[in-house]
Amino acid sequence: MSQVNLQLLAKELGLSIGTVSKALRDSHEISIETKKSVLDLAKKLNYSPNPYASSLRRKRSNTIAVIIPEVADSFFSLAIKGIEEVAQQKGYHVLIYLTYESYEKEQKILEDCKNGRVDGVLISVSIETTSLSHIDELQEHNIPVVFFDRTLEKVTASKITTDDFDSAYKATAHLVNCGCKNIVYLSIADMLFMNNNRIAGFRKALAEANLNDDTKQIVNCPNNAASTYTTIKHLLSGEDKPDGIIASVEKLAIPVYAICDELGIQISSQLKVVCFSTTAYAQILKPGLTTITQPANEIGKIAATVLFKSLRKASASADIEHIVLPSELQIRESAPECSLPSNTAD
Amino acid sequence: MSQVNLQLLAKELGLSIGTVSKALRDSHEISIETKKSVLDLAKKLNYSPNPYASSLRRKRSNTIAVIIPEVADSFFSLAIKGIEEVAQQKGYHVLIYLTYESYEKEQKILEDCKNGRVDGVLISVSIETTSLSHIDELQEHNIPVVFFDRTLEKVTASKITTDDFDSAYKATAHLVNCGCKNIVYLSIADMLFMNNNRIAGFRKALAEANLNDDTKQIVNCPNNAASTYTTIKHLLSGEDKPDGIIASVEKLAIPVYAICDELGIQISSQLKVVCFSTTAYAQILKPGLTTITQPANEIGKIAATVLFKSLRKASASADIEHIVLPSELQIRESAPECSLPSNTAD
Repeated sequence: MSQVNLQLLAKELGLSIGTVSKALRDSHEISIETKKSVLDLAKKLNYSPNPYASSLRRKRSNTIAVIIPEVADSFFSLAIKGIEEVAQQKGYHVLIYLTYESYEKEQKILEDCKNGRVDGVLISVSIETTSLSHIDELQEHNIPVVFFDRTLEKVTASKITTDDFDSAYKATAHLVNCGCKNIVYLSIADMLFMNNNRIAGFRKALAEANLNDDTKQIVNCPNNAASTYTTIKHLLSGEDKPDGIIASVEKLAIPVYAICDELGIQISSQLKVVCFSTTAYAQILKPGLTTITQPANEIGKIAATVLFKSLRKASASADIEHIVLPSELQIRESAPECSLPSNTAD
Repeated sequence: MSQVNLQLLAKELGLSIGTVSKALRDSHEISIETKKSVLDLAKKLNYSPNPYASSLRRKRSNTIAVIIPEVADSFFSLAIKGIEEVAQQKGYHVLIYLTYESYEKEQKILEDCKNGRVDGVLISVSIETTSLSHIDELQEHNIPVVFFDRTLEKVTASKITTDDFDSAYKATAHLVNCGCKNIVYLSIADMLFMNNNRIAGFRKALAEANLNDDTKQIVNCPNNAASTYTTIKHLLSGEDKPDGIIASVEKLAIPVYAICDELGIQISSQLKVVCFSTTAYAQILKPGLTTITQPANEIGKIAATVLFKSLRKASASADIEHIVLPSELQIRESAPECSLPSNTAD
C-alpha cells in the first residue's frame, strides 16, 4: 500500500488536508491552479486515492445513518420509510439520528458517525447549519454523504431535493388566480437554502402579478409553539391582515386553523391557505388543506439508492448526482380552484 | 478476574446459559429449585456476576438505542423527544431503529445492538413479537433493556406503560354515558398485551352497562391502509352499524373521519368517536376528536431515566421498575360531555 497519503500531500504543498481532499474530488470551492498543483504532485508521488482500500481496512458495519431535524413531521417519516425499503433490500440497518435543528448536535452526530459506526450518511441539515466543515470531515474519512431535502449550496455531494422554486411559484400564482392581494409566506425562523428558493418562487409570482412585495410579506415564526401561536395571531388580528397564506412547514397548519377558528376567520372565503405538507390529515380537515405535496417516500428511496451506489463504488467521490423531483399542488377547499383569469405570465 | 463464568456454571449444572443467567437475575420464569442450585454452585465456585467488569471490558459507546415500530405516529415522536431530552443531559447519543411491526426485523436489530454498538436499549415491541429469546440474549450480553408502552408480559425488565385498562374503561363508560348502545373497539391486526388490557377495560364497561359484548364488538383492521379503509367502510355501511367507536391507534382516526364524510354519517350526533392519540390535529378536526391522550413525552423521559439508572449500576439486572402513568380523556365534540345519567357502576 502506498505511503503517500492526504497528510503528506497537504504537508508538501502547504495546504490543509481538507483543501487537498476537495481538490482531488474536483470541488468547485478549489481554484483551478490549486487543483492542478495537487493533481501534479499526486501524480508525481504516485499517490492513489484508493478509497476502496481504506474502506476495506475499515470494518463494514452494514449500517447507514439518516440524520434529520425531527420525526414529528410527516415528510421525514415518509422519507425514512422510503430509505428503509431500499436499505432492507440491501441488507442494511438504518440508524436514525435527530438534530432537533441544532448545529452543535449535528456536529456531534457526524463525529459519532466517523468511527466505523456507519458506512454512509443521508442527511437533511438543521436550520442552524451553514458551515460545511463537519460534512467535509466525514467525507475525508471516506464516508459517503448524500443530502436530501435540506441541503447546503456549496457542498460537493449528491443532493436529492424537490423543485422548491417552482412549487412555491405555482402555489403563489394559484392564490393570485383566486384573487388574493395580500399574500404572506409563513416560515419557521431563519431557514436555509431550501427556503430561499421557495421565497424566490413566491416573490417571482408576486412580481408578475404586480403585488406588493416588501419585507412584510415574509413572516418568520420562532421555532417554538407558543411564540409561533402569538406571531400568527398577531398577523391575523391586524388591520392589514393577509387574504392568502403559504405555510412553509406542516406544523404551521395547526395554529393557522386554530387561530382562524378563534378569530372567526373563514378559511377559503376570507383567507386562502396552502401548506407545504404531506400529512394525511390534510384531507379530513374542514376545509380540506391545499398542500404542496413533496414526493417524500420517493426522495427517501432515491437518496438511499444514490448512497448505495457510492458505497458499491466504495468512494466518497463517486459520481455526484443532483436530482430534483417535482412536488404536486393538491388543491382542496382551503384554497380551491378559482375561475378568475390568471394574472401570471405563462 | 474469576475464570468462573456463565458458560462454566451452565455446563456444570447441565442447564442452558440463558437459564443460568435468568436464575441469577431472579427471573420468575425459573423454578425456585433451579435458582437454588444455580446460586449454590455460584457461591461454591466463588462466581461473581460482575457485570461492571464486563461492561468495562466492553468499550462504552455512550449511545442508547430506541427500538420502535414506526415514527409516523405522534406517540412515538413525542416519546423520542422525551428520551432525547434525558439522553442529551447525560451526554448520550440516541439511535432510533424502526421495526415496522416485524418480529424478524426486531430480532436483527437486537442482534446488531449486542456488539458494543449501544450501551442500553429502550424498546416498544412490534405487533408480531411474542417470544422473549431476542430480549433474553441482549440481557445476557449485559445490555440493559427497558420497555416502554408496548411490553411483553413475561419479560424480566423494567416497564413504563400507561393505564390501558383504566383508560379504555373510562372512554367506554363515557360513550355509554352518552347513550351509545353499540360500541365497537377498532384495532389494528392482532395486537398484544397492551391491547388485551385495553380490551379488558372496554369489556368491563360494556358488561357493567349490560351492553352486548360478543366478538362483533372488536373489529380488527389489517395493517395496511387500503384494507383498513375497506374494513371500516363495511362496518359503517352495515345494518347494525355502531353508534360509538373506540379507535386503538391514531392512524385509524383518518379513515373513520373520511368514511363518515363519504357516507354522510354525522360524527358526534350519529357516531361518537374516541381515539387513543396524541396528535395535535385532534383539536382542529371538525368535530374535534375526543382522545385518550397518553403522556408520551413523560413515558419517554421516565423510560430513559430508568435506563440510565441501570447503566450507572452497570448491570442488566438493576432494580426492576414497573411504572404505570395515567392517560387523560380529552373530551372534544366527537364524543362530547353528555348529561345522560350514567349506567356504569361507580
